[in-house]
Amino acid sequence: MTEILAAPQLNEPALSDLDAWWRAANYLSAGQIYLLDNPLLTEPLAPEHIKPRLIGHWGSVPGITLTYAHLNRMIRSRAQRTLFVLGPGHGAAGLNAAAWLEGTYSEHHPQVGQDVAGMRELFRQFSFPGGVPSHASPHLPGSIHEGGELGYSLAHATGAALDNPDLLVACVIGDGEAETGPLATSWHAPSFLDPATDGIVLPILHLNGYKIANPTLLSRIPRSDLDSLLSGHGWWPLHVEGSDPTAVHEQFATVLDIAMDRIAEIRTAARRGVSTPALRLPAIVLATPKGWTGPRSVDGVRVEGTFRAHQVPLGGVREDPGHLALLEQWLLSYHPGELFGPDGAPVARLREQAPVGDLRMSAAPIAHGREQIDLRLPAVSDYALPVDVPASSTGEATQVLGTYLRDTLVANPANMLFFSPDEHRSNRLDAVLEVTGRRWREATVDGDDRLSPTGRVFEVLSEHLCQGWLEGYLLTGRHGLFSSYEAFTHIVDSMVVQHAKWLVAAAEFPWRETIPSLNYLITSHVWRQDHNGASHQDPGFIDHVLSKRPEVARVYLPPDANCLLHVMDHCLRGRGRVNVVVAGKQPALQYLDDDRARDHVARGLGVWSWAGTGDTAPDIVLACAGDVPTQETLAAAALLRELVPGLHVRVVNVVDLTRLFSPDRHPHGIPDSDYAAMFGPSPVLFAFHGYPWLIHQLTYRRPYHHMLHVRGFRDNGTTTTPFDMCALNGIDRYQLAMAAVELVPRLTGRAAPLLATLAERLDTALAYTRRTGEDLPEITGWTWPGPAEP
Amino acid sequence: MTEILAAPQLNEPALSDLDAWWRAANYLSAGQIYLLDNPLLTEPLAPEHIKPRLIGHWGSVPGITLTYAHLNRMIRSRAQRTLFVLGPGHGAAGLNAAAWLEGTYSEHHPQVGQDVAGMRELFRQFSFPGGVPSHASPHLPGSIHEGGELGYSLAHATGAALDNPDLLVACVIGDGEAETGPLATSWHAPSFLDPATDGIVLPILHLNGYKIANPTLLSRIPRSDLDSLLSGHGWWPLHVEGSDPTAVHEQFATVLDIAMDRIAEIRTAARRGVSTPALRLPAIVLATPKGWTGPRSVDGVRVEGTFRAHQVPLGGVREDPGHLALLEQWLLSYHPGELFGPDGAPVARLREQAPVGDLRMSAAPIAHGREQIDLRLPAVSDYALPVDVPASSTGEATQVLGTYLRDTLVANPANMLFFSPDEHRSNRLDAVLEVTGRRWREATVDGDDRLSPTGRVFEVLSEHLCQGWLEGYLLTGRHGLFSSYEAFTHIVDSMVVQHAKWLVAAAEFPWRETIPSLNYLITSHVWRQDHNGASHQDPGFIDHVLSKRPEVARVYLPPDANCLLHVMDHCLRGRGRVNVVVAGKQPALQYLDDDRARDHVARGLGVWSWAGTGDTAPDIVLACAGDVPTQETLAAAALLRELVPGLHVRVVNVVDLTRLFSPDRHPHGIPDSDYAAMFGPSPVLFAFHGYPWLIHQLTYRRPYHHMLHVRGFRDNGTTTTPFDMCALNGIDRYQLAMAAVELVPRLTGRAAPLLATLAERLDTALAYTRRTGEDLPEITGWTWPGPAEP
Repeated sequence: MTEILAAPQLNEPALSDLDAWWRAANYLSAGQIYLLDNPLLTEPLAPEHIKPRLIGHWGSVPGITLTYAHLNRMIRSRAQRTLFVLGPGHGAAGLNAAAWLEGTYSEHHPQVGQDVAGMRELFRQFSFPGGVPSHASPHLPGSIHEGGELGYSLAHATGAALDNPDLLVACVIGDGEAETGPLATSWHAPSFLDPATDGIVLPILHLNGYKIANPTLLSRIPRSDLDSLLSGHGWWPLHVEGSDPTAVHEQFATVLDIAMDRIAEIRTAARRGVSTPALRLPAIVLATPKGWTGPRSVDGVRVEGTFRAHQVPLGGVREDPGHLALLEQWLLSYHPGELFGPDGAPVARLREQAPVGDLRMSAAPIAHGREQIDLRLPAVSDYALPVDVPASSTGEATQVLGTYLRDTLVANPANMLFFSPDEHRSNRLDAVLEVTGRRWREATVDGDDRLSPTGRVFEVLSEHLCQGWLEGYLLTGRHGLFSSYEAFTHIVDSMVVQHAKWLVAAAEFPWRETIPSLNYLITSHVWRQDHNGASHQDPGFIDHVLSKRPEVARVYLPPDANCLLHVMDHCLRGRGRVNVVVAGKQPALQYLDDDRARDHVARGLGVWSWAGTGDTAPDIVLACAGDVPTQETLAAAALLRELVPGLHVRVVNVVDLTRLFSPDRHPHGIPDSDYAAMFGPSPVLFAFHGYPWLIHQLTYRRPYHHMLHVRGFRDNGTTTTPFDMCALNGIDRYQLAMAAVELVPRLTGRAAPLLATLAERLDTALAYTRRTGEDLPEITGWTWPGPAEP
Repeated sequence: MTEILAAPQLNEPALSDLDAWWRAANYLSAGQIYLLDNPLLTEPLAPEHIKPRLIGHWGSVPGITLTYAHLNRMIRSRAQRTLFVLGPGHGAAGLNAAAWLEGTYSEHHPQVGQDVAGMRELFRQFSFPGGVPSHASPHLPGSIHEGGELGYSLAHATGAALDNPDLLVACVIGDGEAETGPLATSWHAPSFLDPATDGIVLPILHLNGYKIANPTLLSRIPRSDLDSLLSGHGWWPLHVEGSDPTAVHEQFATVLDIAMDRIAEIRTAARRGVSTPALRLPAIVLATPKGWTGPRSVDGVRVEGTFRAHQVPLGGVREDPGHLALLEQWLLSYHPGELFGPDGAPVARLREQAPVGDLRMSAAPIAHGREQIDLRLPAVSDYALPVDVPASSTGEATQVLGTYLRDTLVANPANMLFFSPDEHRSNRLDAVLEVTGRRWREATVDGDDRLSPTGRVFEVLSEHLCQGWLEGYLLTGRHGLFSSYEAFTHIVDSMVVQHAKWLVAAAEFPWRETIPSLNYLITSHVWRQDHNGASHQDPGFIDHVLSKRPEVARVYLPPDANCLLHVMDHCLRGRGRVNVVVAGKQPALQYLDDDRARDHVARGLGVWSWAGTGDTAPDIVLACAGDVPTQETLAAAALLRELVPGLHVRVVNVVDLTRLFSPDRHPHGIPDSDYAAMFGPSPVLFAFHGYPWLIHQLTYRRPYHHMLHVRGFRDNGTTTTPFDMCALNGIDRYQLAMAAVELVPRLTGRAAPLLATLAERLDTALAYTRRTGEDLPEITGWTWPGPAEP
């Protein structure tokens, strides 16, 4: 399957220099796992030089450093701007070494200089308290991908390549992570990447052979099957395989030149507008022994080339003089004396291996968020719906947002993208498709809708890909939006954890510019998945996101279209956050005009005096968050006004859920005094979009918490009507009004007839909805009765 | 790529009968989407016969019913026990129709008889309040897979096939869901399935062509690439393609016979012990138009064969007489008069298409949990560690559990399996590998560890596959355990939601026997991921599981090995639950002997009087849940005893977290009186394994909640030492003791020197741990000082 084309051979001095760099990187990697001191082995290795607790992953390092070395050769000869994405977990030792050899590590971490003391610190800090982790975390110059949780490297690489036409993204994929679902579907990238306007992704599948304990699937299926698998996804597999360094160097250099020639050919043709479907994108398959160049065997058991080389290939070094000698012998096998001067600095021939300036992969400005262009955002007012009287007209929130997003896209033609699992139109963001298409580079036929090889809407039925591509795009400083069905955002729960952790850790390093926020638009939410049924009903993603650090986690529940516009404007301007915006796509009542919406969103929550009875001492506070609970709350307020004249009701609406946190738990938290002024001292009935206990989780230390009663989704759902969804969970207008009646002490004596009336209305509504499959006209067509009688 | 072998042609009458069945199933499917009444079209179709709200997904139905019809032919001719797994979402209308035609629908839902009234009800109830959802949910006889969230069909099919040697699992895979990560990696099944001891999975990839709005990738990449992709995963692709029913019937019958002959060949050889690597398992690729046989075009716009056929191909039928006529014409095109008698029952030639009795796919007993064999569990006492004095000896909880699981496996050789993402040994369950191997059917080499083509431990680096395979295995009535790193269980957050919802819905149908519980063993948990760093530190899976219905959600935090044994014994005996068990794998103090552990686990929580000062009126309650918080809490209690003689301390340990719920929120909740007796009226300092707010979420309505102070993981973590992990989050022994001192009112006057002493000890410990990378001997070697002085 591998076609070998003529390519320049690596000449002997070049090969020797490259090999020296590789040895140095391997030496420095092993040093990080083992050494506390004596970094250059200038003294005989002694137990006190060894870390007391040996932590690290040696197994994949030599393949990583080998790839890095060969990419450097290619970059020097072609001046190819390149981003390195490291898939194999725990491979940071290799990249720490590479960045140190290139000088960038010391530039960003002055305490780790290119000298003996710096090398000692490079070693000591690795996987050490107060030091750096074993992943390519934000501490590592040039990294955008931590890789602690496996499976997202190729999706991140793909996202980074989008709209970066001159970039090469070299993505080392571990054969372990290749077994994950997200990675398995990431191979579809060629069906989406445009070689004219996007960068090129060069996958380097590292067949390291083993995971922690097992062989890897892709290393053991027949190579012909592996080739089929890659070519079936649109790649051109090229192989580098062996255990003899010289032979592997020559192969790798040849194959990389072949790959880059092919890439140049594809790029050139694409930029001339010539499509070259027969020229597939190269993918390199690199098969080298696990733990290559490490101890071949230990205590008579083979280590190199087996799963035993996965982490620390040689244990008990402090205790066992034999092992200590073996470690010394291993380290000396790299000939550190030839690689580093007496001052500890890499010798000249190593330094010369590094590309110049920003071409060093560890210096790539794009990896540090340093090539950002701010979004140009249109004025929200131009898109706001007119709302003269609250709750008297309807609008479709996401449809309105679509017009704003359309013009945002027009104003930012090369640094904003939309991602969705085939739900863009379903989520009513149609307007965006007036000015762009859906990205699609496979065949098209008559009847297809808005497909385009350069479209800026990415739709693929994989939340993992949507999230991974968007993360890659954001991590390289661009802007985007992920719109999705609410229930299925749980599919990316684990990915958002990792991204949030990255954001928190990255904020520690001033040489990293804060990247644009990760924005979710959740539009097909639990209350309007009545038609799709229980599997589509789960509002827990917001709970999950709020478990992340308060520095990054934000949740917004705009009650109407204008609030949604202002919330999204805020989120798109933001950096360094994970913003979850939940909004409906169905026709719904509109409450606030542009100015009031701006103000309400800025405050994050507030009393809607127009909806209450205007009293400062209410009998009850009806609080709400989310569009459907807001609608039902207002209808309940109207019912109470009708049935219990003289009852003093206050309506509070919450847009920014994190305002409910105490200020010591979240930076958006309002002071207890403000909280008490809004929610106390009356009983509070809170109708909430999500699980009711989330509100308690936010407020359990707030004043009057014992008087807070929350209703929300209790996982009662099926295929039914929108009204029935509310009724099943006790947040329909009738049950809210009944609960309010029961909570007001001064109604105790006369509650029974009120409750009976409300129960009767509920029964009528339920009987109708369950018989016809429709909501009552009084429910779908309900509007606010207007100001109360004076 | 497709080899066409000689195979029996379908004769004309057989084809005609099969086509009639197909037309009937399509008619019944369309009827479910549209009709409230007039089910046989005995009157002219009128608006009042039409549902007011048209809900359903027509697009994939004709391919599903076609497949079902052809499988029936095959089952009749070969008496092949077959389970049908439906991947495409929302395809239940087709399967409702098939089950109704086979009589099983009426057997299980007597109100939906095989007559006119029953057909009317079959139609009315579909996607209707109080009726059935649009997915193959538990209401549907023969279904084990709902398919509302896409991507898990092939994994479920694979799990169902395990240990079912005579079974064929026919798995229709949607080309939409094929884009998901979990499905993409599910194609690796041939590397694990043993044709001698497992059933055969027959994937039928339905190239329906479109998702909601977009084409599907697999239908648009060149067919040769699709063949490469399938063969690269070890399958033998066989194609059925067309839009002419007669031609497609003939092709499908031929291809299915070829496939079944191949399967028979592989099976026969495997059972003779002959390996046949050259004979690959067949996978059928079925390409038919989306919405086939539905309206070709509507209002001049093409519908059949486009994305417009995805849901309701013809809208506005009540309002638009033209559309009403089109619907009538469409329905009559199936010739219902030939298919159903005047009584509404299917005519004889249709009934004869159904296989006999339990061979009907809709009657498969295995799909209803009706072929279960109880686990034979060894006596826990035989494995319990001796614990004479609490907290004086150490043990490794999961290592001990491993011996119990080993013998469980031996006692249940054909109905229990273990699943793990390559972490079985890492999680210290080694003992299991004494009696079985890791399942592996690819090449092996020298140096591999415990691989076996029939091994009962499944390790693959995909949490999705582990979960999906286990679910398939459980859903067909067998038993299993998923062990995983805690942080990465979030990868399957969405899958566990769907499984929990299935369990809740399935409990409504008495003809479904409750299936064995889904058991998680989370062993590499947040407090001992100090070496792997922040990406591996997230205890939120238990929060997520507790958001599911209380009928199914359970979380256990056994503090030591013996408690773990009793918890696991309980979980393995259980049915219908999702059990999350969190337990450490590191050497740790042991607290309870076998009897005490049994009692403590049965109660779920309790006062550890041996660890307190024995007073009934404590100054403070030190509560704990989780092994590391328990250890630190006991150490804090000892520090308080040392530094504040006379302080009255009570220690409470919680194993079953759901005991903390109020009884009205969870069936395991203890009464408020019991809660108050244990936790009140003193201040409570609760050291918790997970996020602190989870405890508040469980207890916010409990007495004395305002005096409850919880410490837990606050997302402060990195690569460091175990002690530092505790210190960073304020749950180390010193900070707990300091917090306790501050909470006890009567210490107010003399707190300062106590706090200073504790702070000094904390500083010493931190300085040591951060300098050396090790815990202090006083921490790792700490034991309980024994009973207090009388």
